[in-house]
Amino acid sequence: MRTQKKDRSRLIAAAMQKIQCDMTVENVQLVNVLTGEIYPASVDILDGMIVRVREKGEETSVKSKEIYDGGGKYMIPGFIDTHMHVESSMMLPENLGRAAAVWGTTTVCTDPHEIANVMGIDGVRFMLENGKKQAIRHYVLAPSSVPAVPALEGNGAYFGAEEVGEILDMDGVVGIAEIMDYVGVYNDCERMHGIIDEGIKRNMFLQGHSPMARGKELAAYILGGPKSDHESSIADEVREKLRNGMHINLRASSIIDALTEQKKGIDGQLWHDNVSICTDDVHAKDLLEKGHINAVVRKLIEMGMEPIEAIKLASYNAAREYNFEDLGAIAPGYAADFQLVKRLDGNMPSEVFVDGRLVAENGVYTADDDKSPIADMPNTVNMPQIASPEDFLMKAPEGCGDSAKILVLTRNGGNAAVKTGRWMELPVKNGYVSIDGHDELQFVCVANRYGSGDKNIAVMDCFDMKEGAMATTVSHDSHNFTVFYKDIDSAWACAERLKETGGGMCAAKDGKVISAIELPVAGLMSTHACKEVSDEIENIENTIKSLCGEEFTLLMLVVFSLPVLPGLTLTDRGMIDGMTQRFVQQSCLS
Amino acid sequence: MRTQKKDRSRLIAAAMQKIQCDMTVENVQLVNVLTGEIYPASVDILDGMIVRVREKGEETSVKSKEIYDGGGKYMIPGFIDTHMHVESSMMLPENLGRAAAVWGTTTVCTDPHEIANVMGIDGVRFMLENGKKQAIRHYVLAPSSVPAVPALEGNGAYFGAEEVGEILDMDGVVGIAEIMDYVGVYNDCERMHGIIDEGIKRNMFLQGHSPMARGKELAAYILGGPKSDHESSIADEVREKLRNGMHINLRASSIIDALTEQKKGIDGQLWHDNVSICTDDVHAKDLLEKGHINAVVRKLIEMGMEPIEAIKLASYNAAREYNFEDLGAIAPGYAADFQLVKRLDGNMPSEVFVDGRLVAENGVYTADDDKSPIADMPNTVNMPQIASPEDFLMKAPEGCGDSAKILVLTRNGGNAAVKTGRWMELPVKNGYVSIDGHDELQFVCVANRYGSGDKNIAVMDCFDMKEGAMATTVSHDSHNFTVFYKDIDSAWACAERLKETGGGMCAAKDGKVISAIELPVAGLMSTHACKEVSDEIENIENTIKSLCGEEFTLLMLVVFSLPVLPGLTLTDRGMIDGMTQRFVQQSCLS
Repeated sequence: MRTQKKDRSRLIAAAMQKIQCDMTVENVQLVNVLTGEIYPASVDILDGMIVRVREKGEETSVKSKEIYDGGGKYMIPGFIDTHMHVESSMMLPENLGRAAAVWGTTTVCTDPHEIANVMGIDGVRFMLENGKKQAIRHYVLAPSSVPAVPALEGNGAYFGAEEVGEILDMDGVVGIAEIMDYVGVYNDCERMHGIIDEGIKRNMFLQGHSPMARGKELAAYILGGPKSDHESSIADEVREKLRNGMHINLRASSIIDALTEQKKGIDGQLWHDNVSICTDDVHAKDLLEKGHINAVVRKLIEMGMEPIEAIKLASYNAAREYNFEDLGAIAPGYAADFQLVKRLDGNMPSEVFVDGRLVAENGVYTADDDKSPIADMPNTVNMPQIASPEDFLMKAPEGCGDSAKILVLTRNGGNAAVKTGRWMELPVKNGYVSIDGHDELQFVCVANRYGSGDKNIAVMDCFDMKEGAMATTVSHDSHNFTVFYKDIDSAWACAERLKETGGGMCAAKDGKVISAIELPVAGLMSTHACKEVSDEIENIENTIKSLCGEEFTLLMLVVFSLPVLPGLTLTDRGMIDGMTQRFVQQSCLS
Repeated sequence: MRTQKKDRSRLIAAAMQKIQCDMTVENVQLVNVLTGEIYPASVDILDGMIVRVREKGEETSVKSKEIYDGGGKYMIPGFIDTHMHVESSMMLPENLGRAAAVWGTTTVCTDPHEIANVMGIDGVRFMLENGKKQAIRHYVLAPSSVPAVPALEGNGAYFGAEEVGEILDMDGVVGIAEIMDYVGVYNDCERMHGIIDEGIKRNMFLQGHSPMARGKELAAYILGGPKSDHESSIADEVREKLRNGMHINLRASSIIDALTEQKKGIDGQLWHDNVSICTDDVHAKDLLEKGHINAVVRKLIEMGMEPIEAIKLASYNAAREYNFEDLGAIAPGYAADFQLVKRLDGNMPSEVFVDGRLVAENGVYTADDDKSPIADMPNTVNMPQIASPEDFLMKAPEGCGDSAKILVLTRNGGNAAVKTGRWMELPVKNGYVSIDGHDELQFVCVANRYGSGDKNIAVMDCFDMKEGAMATTVSHDSHNFTVFYKDIDSAWACAERLKETGGGMCAAKDGKVISAIELPVAGLMSTHACKEVSDEIENIENTIKSLCGEEFTLLMLVVFSLPVLPGLTLTDRGMIDGMTQRFVQQSCLS
């Protein structure tokens, strides 16, 4: 697929030295990811495309309008992120793009899975449009699992084959995003079969996601359609998938980093044609301080990979995975997306060019973007069932008297993400369960924020929370309002604030909000730039640490309600056993 | 692009061991071209697709209908020819396929350039249909240069953008064939621009052909669209093209073999992602005795290339060039096209499978083909201007008297393909030029065979022809009737025979045909199988050697009239200077 639709006649005329090029970048050491060679060159550019790479001694008789001195630096292709969720950064696509550009990323292939769960197709369209407001290429894949687990929780949208097809037909959409219901694929369930059909009939890329799928299940998954994986966490699994024809996206995200194992899985193979790089989830602070795809390249180089090989994985191989014919290399007919770097080490580039334009210099984003504010986004926090502090009281089972047996969610061996349950006898006051006198206990409430009126309250001891409340509208995968609280007034303060601001995260004490980050876009994303978002997140995380102890991280908050985790979890509809994917009873009479 | 449209549900069910596979090939050393590894495996197959590759120790609970013992041999992917003209073998696609299959070729990508020049779109359609009558995959590319050189010669069809577009929409057509008017591309001529547009708008493969294009012309050619080259004959040219993003098809044909230089052009590069193999033109005798793609693989291995690398070039890299997602490797979801070989040396495989079926064993083609005769083909030899022996008399210039000055075509330093001219005073009898008494001279007549009535006669000394005549309807690129003769009765005998049989090659002496090969399909192809065609060609070549000396080869005959050669040449419309692409005067008064 040619991603660029430029006037070929002008490009040919420029190559033939009949018209001027826009720019020549002179005096660079060209890193050729097509052949693995490095040599001095000058690069002529017109209309955002590379017209010609002139090796030393090759002159042109028509001087370009602008001569850019590469200062003897290496010219390497711009990096391509083969799989990421913009929402994980809590930034808009435009701000993510600006933050990634300075690190040499020139293309991102994103899965707007989170906003799709909240806002459906409108959310996908918003991401596509917003992505155009900055300089790097922002491609979108159609989320394949909205909701991730139908029936167990309420969310904002349902995508079947029809909806996925509608998205695939949008300009800028390049495939189906991580097909994570791998059980559904290898069991050939109708829903996944139909969704994949939409991709196949359009000859589009099918991105996989199959952690621990091996042997017959792996073969069946591949036969079902998906062709890639970024979830493998052990070397043998990586090797098996590559041998079986999968493309492996080496991943080092802000959450998971199995890069050492993943690299072991490719070591000793003669070719890495089917290996590229992704970040999956990258947090604002990491993006600000450590980088983006370059950070994974840096790690691979530190692990002993040849720099030019790591660069190829991050550029040409990524483009070939997507069949982007004109991205990922520096040669005639490729988009002029490249970086100038002093060393081949994965550190910050000196200059970054996209479409032949300088967009970042020494960490400063310099592109002249459309600065218009984003269109008014709807407030997606719609919770009629939360109308007063009393709505956070937990009803005791009918006819229970002074106490009841409650299934308390409890951390499993110190891991707050994977929860088990233990039955406790708890006092009941005025028909409501009480945790008075139980310092180790808190309430948690998951409230549907899409107007269904569902909510569910449980008792837990997962956090060392001593007082107040903390709440989030970022709560994977359905992003319902999730609040942890010692007192209902603080929970209510959080709810009031997030209803008002259209979502975000906040902490309250004594019935008053003491820290918040506003995420008005779908309750998932801030409108602020990377540095501010990073600071705001750090701020609220520190506040919550003051309530819950130093061990606490925001990640524990946002994955608490994830129904695909093993163990018990809570959704707006009930308590779930992740292994059986069934509801469990939460309370009974003593 | 998925080339196979199989029932995914059945394949998934087979992988999950819910239904039986058709066959398991056990006990092989799998050569994995995806990773460069070799290991013991069993391969399960259903509906012509690979369902699963089980490594040693991986069992299945559902036994396949058939167990095939691989006997410990290597299993390698079937080979793919990235560029060839079936017509060069003088065989039909069905017979070419059968002959190539025994050598491990399982896919050919063919350019029906020759039949298109004779029969236009009907010819292309015929090739597509006929190719289905045998077992290997026969893909067709739309010829881009019909005629090769408009205006200088008459042929049977004209392809502009509209005709190329019509062909691209046919099932089984996978791109535009070698875009050989490279001057037209880099000068951005309207015709080539329009033809290439048809490919780009359908997102189809654009095959290049740019001998000696370097520097700015090479960049302009690439920007014009084509992405590959098989014509490079020196190492630096190969290297330059690869650096500039072209895909190089290493070629060893029956006519041209610059493999040593081509290989030098890729030596020292870290990766060969963009290198594959083609045969371009392969003659029946070579196909019978030396092989097909395997013969190029063998040569590369003999030159020092790692066998597994050469095998990858001939399979996976070829498939990736065309973006055939499911060909070229042995893994779940790939078509079950493979070979069993005792050694990785490029010699004849023991067994060849296509679509999971055994199609050849130890050099014997075993597939159960549709044996129905081909549909009646039209006789394409239509020459109303050749109605009697006297039509081969060469008219002297008007008013010339007893003699005239004639521009005699003469071989250039012993090279019969590149011809110069020398003016000679020749006798004129009854208004006709005579070569009586000039043992070294012969006549040559090129007669339009598409009904235009054009013909052109010249005198030449290119062959050491002592008597009789020889004629061919295979005469690149327009395939007009071309006859070389000492006497008009022998020329007439040849013409009568070829008119009657619908074309071919023949030799005559004393007014009688003494040897012939019938090529009734478009005057280009025999209906016979490889061995017979090889014998028939050898027979007529030997007969002609008896007329012209041992130095003679049929190749000299069939390229005599090629107007793109440098030097002088003859077409049905006149004598051409290949360098200037202009007509030249052939005779004048003394």
